[in-house]
Amino acid sequence: MKFIAEINVMPLKEILDPQGKAVTGSMKNLDLAEIQNIRIGKHITLEIDADTEEIARQKVDTACKKLLANLIMESYEFELTAV
Amino acid sequence: MKFIAEINVMPLKEILDPQGKAVTGSMKNLDLAEIQNIRIGKHITLEIDADTEEIARQKVDTACKKLLANLIMESYEFELTAV
Repeated sequence: MKFIAEINVMPLKEILDPQGKAVTGSMKNLDLAEIQNIRIGKHITLEIDADTEEIARQKVDTACKKLLANLIMESYEFELTAV
Repeated sequence: MKFIAEINVMPLKEILDPQGKAVTGSMKNLDLAEIQNIRIGKHITLEIDADTEEIARQKVDTACKKLLANLIMESYEFELTAV
């Protein structure tokens, strides 16, 4: 079976996000000062072939832990959809 | 009212995603060759104060068009949640 995974990798709440902070500042220049607290992470989509959803979930989890997210600074979450 | 927006900004399908392609290649080294077609974009969260959900939606849309996404190379989608 083929699954699509949608993964979000975000900087941990405890960690400063300078990119998000800079973009929050820029919102004022666009007359959008009511937008606050922007945080910027990564959105990753991928396709995976696996026999069951459980196996697919484990493999995506391994990919996140070993390559896609830096667990010292980032957290991740993902959703799987069968296609 | 305060809303939280979750925005995904992704490279357009027609456009090469060299970062995603490089990461797809690295999956083989992790014994995860069944993971294919990785595409990497941005996941952005923000808080917005607005009187109604409709106004919040318009402002987030403006922020995406003017600052967060480059519409020549990227597409965006977002969800709003009242908090």
